[in-house]
Amino acid sequence: MARALRIDLNCDLGEGFGRYDLGEDAAMMALVTSVNAACGFHAGDPDVMARTVLLAKQNGVALGAHPGYPDLQGFGRRQMRMASQEIANAVCYQLGALDAFARVAGMKLRHVKPHGALYNLASQDTATAQAIAQTVHSYDPNLILVGLAGSELPRMGRAVGLRVADEGFPDRAYLSNGQLMPRNMPGAVIIAPEEVARNALRLVEEGITLHGEKVSIETLCLHGDNPEAIENARAVRHAMESAGVAILPLA
Amino acid sequence: MARALRIDLNCDLGEGFGRYDLGEDAAMMALVTSVNAACGFHAGDPDVMARTVLLAKQNGVALGAHPGYPDLQGFGRRQMRMASQEIANAVCYQLGALDAFARVAGMKLRHVKPHGALYNLASQDTATAQAIAQTVHSYDPNLILVGLAGSELPRMGRAVGLRVADEGFPDRAYLSNGQLMPRNMPGAVIIAPEEVARNALRLVEEGITLHGEKVSIETLCLHGDNPEAIENARAVRHAMESAGVAILPLA
Amino acid sequence: MARALRIDLNCDLGEGFGRYDLGEDAAMMALVTSVNAACGFHAGDPDVMARTVLLAKQNGVALGAHPGYPDLQGFGRRQMRMASQEIANAVCYQLGALDAFARVAGMKLRHVKPHGALYNLASQDTATAQAIAQTVHSYDPNLILVGLAGSELPRMGRAVGLRVADEGFPDRAYLSNGQLMPRNMPGAVIIAPEEVARNALRLVEEGITLHGEKVSIETLCLHGDNPEAIENARAVRHAMESAGVAILPLA
Amino acid sequence: MARALRIDLNCDLGEGFGRYDLGEDAAMMALVTSVNAACGFHAGDPDVMARTVLLAKQNGVALGAHPGYPDLQGFGRRQMRMASQEIANAVCYQLGALDAFARVAGMKLRHVKPHGALYNLASQDTATAQAIAQTVHSYDPNLILVGLAGSELPRMGRAVGLRVADEGFPDRAYLSNGQLMPRNMPGAVIIAPEEVARNALRLVEEGITLHGEKVSIETLCLHGDNPEAIENARAVRHAMESAGVAILPLA
Repeated sequence: MARALRIDLNCDLGEGFGRYDLGEDAAMMALVTSVNAACGFHAGDPDVMARTVLLAKQNGVALGAHPGYPDLQGFGRRQMRMASQEIANAVCYQLGALDAFARVAGMKLRHVKPHGALYNLASQDTATAQAIAQTVHSYDPNLILVGLAGSELPRMGRAVGLRVADEGFPDRAYLSNGQLMPRNMPGAVIIAPEEVARNALRLVEEGITLHGEKVSIETLCLHGDNPEAIENARAVRHAMESAGVAILPLA
Repeated sequence: MARALRIDLNCDLGEGFGRYDLGEDAAMMALVTSVNAACGFHAGDPDVMARTVLLAKQNGVALGAHPGYPDLQGFGRRQMRMASQEIANAVCYQLGALDAFARVAGMKLRHVKPHGALYNLASQDTATAQAIAQTVHSYDPNLILVGLAGSELPRMGRAVGLRVADEGFPDRAYLSNGQLMPRNMPGAVIIAPEEVARNALRLVEEGITLHGEKVSIETLCLHGDNPEAIENARAVRHAMESAGVAILPLA
Repeated sequence: MARALRIDLNCDLGEGFGRYDLGEDAAMMALVTSVNAACGFHAGDPDVMARTVLLAKQNGVALGAHPGYPDLQGFGRRQMRMASQEIANAVCYQLGALDAFARVAGMKLRHVKPHGALYNLASQDTATAQAIAQTVHSYDPNLILVGLAGSELPRMGRAVGLRVADEGFPDRAYLSNGQLMPRNMPGAVIIAPEEVARNALRLVEEGITLHGEKVSIETLCLHGDNPEAIENARAVRHAMESAGVAILPLA
Repeated sequence: MARALRIDLNCDLGEGFGRYDLGEDAAMMALVTSVNAACGFHAGDPDVMARTVLLAKQNGVALGAHPGYPDLQGFGRRQMRMASQEIANAVCYQLGALDAFARVAGMKLRHVKPHGALYNLASQDTATAQAIAQTVHSYDPNLILVGLAGSELPRMGRAVGLRVADEGFPDRAYLSNGQLMPRNMPGAVIIAPEEVARNALRLVEEGITLHGEKVSIETLCLHGDNPEAIENARAVRHAMESAGVAILPLA
């Protein structure tokens, strides 16, 4: 392999709301290179967002918006039948809201990654992917759009002229056809840190093969809201460092 | 009077939500020079905001943010005991959210005016006024802060270095001490268009006198959500034109 | 026909929220025999609900709960992928909330009719229909479950032991197979009052035929939130009276 | 002392929302005799409420409603300037919503205790206390109203004919005039379990003296959402048992 490998490690953070805390934000900030901050619809409130942006700044972590469905009770994990224009407007609103805190803190948004059921729908549904990609591009053409590797979202991102980042999930098993194994299948979620690390390294070194085409992985999603979060993140970092993979934010 | 008089006419619009319409947005847009768009907390949703911004653009009307308390049921008219930092963050969030639609539409935010109970509190409470003024300044020092003429909000706006606009209410009676007559007093709200117009002209030509100091009025608030809205707006415009007062957005 | 025909006329009311009014509640109350009151999720707030219940009492109209998805912005018209147990709990919550106002006003809930996208899903999806039917039955086995004539909802209602009422839509065209013509087809929505009235009478006198089986219509839905609402309601009432059909609440 | 002492131990539980858990519900249920369940406004959602009611049933704990301000972000701790009728309707709505889950589970509501800033306001403001007391009485005259010992809420509860329970806070210091020491004063919150237990016993054995009148304490509030919760609850129970005080739900 001629060029040195690099990988971005991202994590969904800032997912508390009011009295509710969620996830190991401070600890995870020290282990990742990019943070996807909830924007008030599925999680996060203005106070949480202000804190998350400051934490990202203090840790020198790249800041991204993590817009989701307007469904706090469902944590953005329940698909809602919204028109494409409604989705575009919901994403636009959340982008601007987070960006305001970045601006006040003297930071710039680097990327956008949809959350939960919106992420899933944008992976498969062209109209949704396009609505999101166009909104992000209209808002700021320099933003990087993060989406499921090889799916509709990065495809439509490229189509509208955005820089995109194909994302892999080290704690999820992949099928031989390159797709994520559905969560309800046994073995779909990988728990043991050493296995997560091994999966992460394979994703970075080999990418995935979808429909006969190789897709390189540019960013890995590390979960921050389960008990294994910190241990898994450390294991992934260690595997990368051992293999000489540079851990760097998206360029 | 040496210099020619000018006045900005502003109106709170974009106050619908989902299935709910409110106010005569399209008609009022043609009669005012500045619009204060609700930002999703006390009214307005992302779809309403997108439409309001486009309508402002089509009408060549200056666009401002109209942030309020997070209380849709109370339409932002019920005071909530929020800490100054919570208010600052709520305003920051709403500013950015509206600005996103402006940005996508190729417009720029011109001003910020708090809504309802937040406007009232910011008129009287120094800490609240300061929290809002500092947030607006941190977000964009070129924004104009609109507040009750002679009150804490314009005072703190000037203190943090913002351009401010003192606002008058032509459909509200003023006491001899320069303060608004409380709504529960008889005669506090002026209904007849000719009286509203007369009050408007007096506010523009004479300003108000508070604590012995004269305060010039730079913008008049025209209400857009009552049956007399259109007629009142036309009467005010006519009075200004007859008196040679230029109707122009805030400079 | 041996026995005299009777029909219930129902209307979705109490659909305002906070500052927002919707529909001609007072006028429609005088024209219908049953009212379906929104319960705070897709529309209605505690103050609106209190007023709606009192209005129903004053008009001697049977009171029903009209639970919907927790989506005020979408007015409950956007399907949300909720688990059956989540739907059951959302319905239970709304039932109790409305019932509290009935209880305080000295009224009793007579029926339950799901709203919007939840109504549509419950017409087709057995698990959803069953979750709703069982919840209603557990809450109060004397409640009447109102649903689309011949659909899964009345079917599951009967299965759990509830009294059900098959509902027809006089302002909607029916296909020859007994199903509602989809809204996006030309002619699906009937506007002219005399046609609505004719359709109403046909539904009452002939019912509909679904899968070769005749389904009698026990209640007609009159819309209360469009400009033709009052005129249509009067036309339907007149058609019933002319044909000797008794207009009576569900027994 | 002639008659044997008895005390109810209550705890605010069911305060999660969607993805968010809060408090040690299962553990606390085993240590208290009454639970105050959040009703969806300041905390709790329909799914959380269904689970909380079942947990109360399984533990044989008396179930009460814990209505709060409609402010999830502020956890009901920020006072909102609502009219008395708005407060009454908000309480009515929440009462019914919780009662629905009780009814479906075959339980009965035993008591009502307002939450957070609403509790505080109801302790001091006669109109608020009266609005709540009347609503509870109209809803079900057999419900017990729980409020700050010696305050407006129990006073107005008695005035409308409700059975009331004066509540004490073992982890809060009391001033010599019988009032709670304000939270911002040093020593206002008691942390050490043995001190909490001692304070609890004093409250039960001696009550408090307000304006020269002795007020007996019928229920003690045990907090369930801090790290010391379980230990404090055990210490209080142990102190009661050692002193021969019967731990029993409100009669």
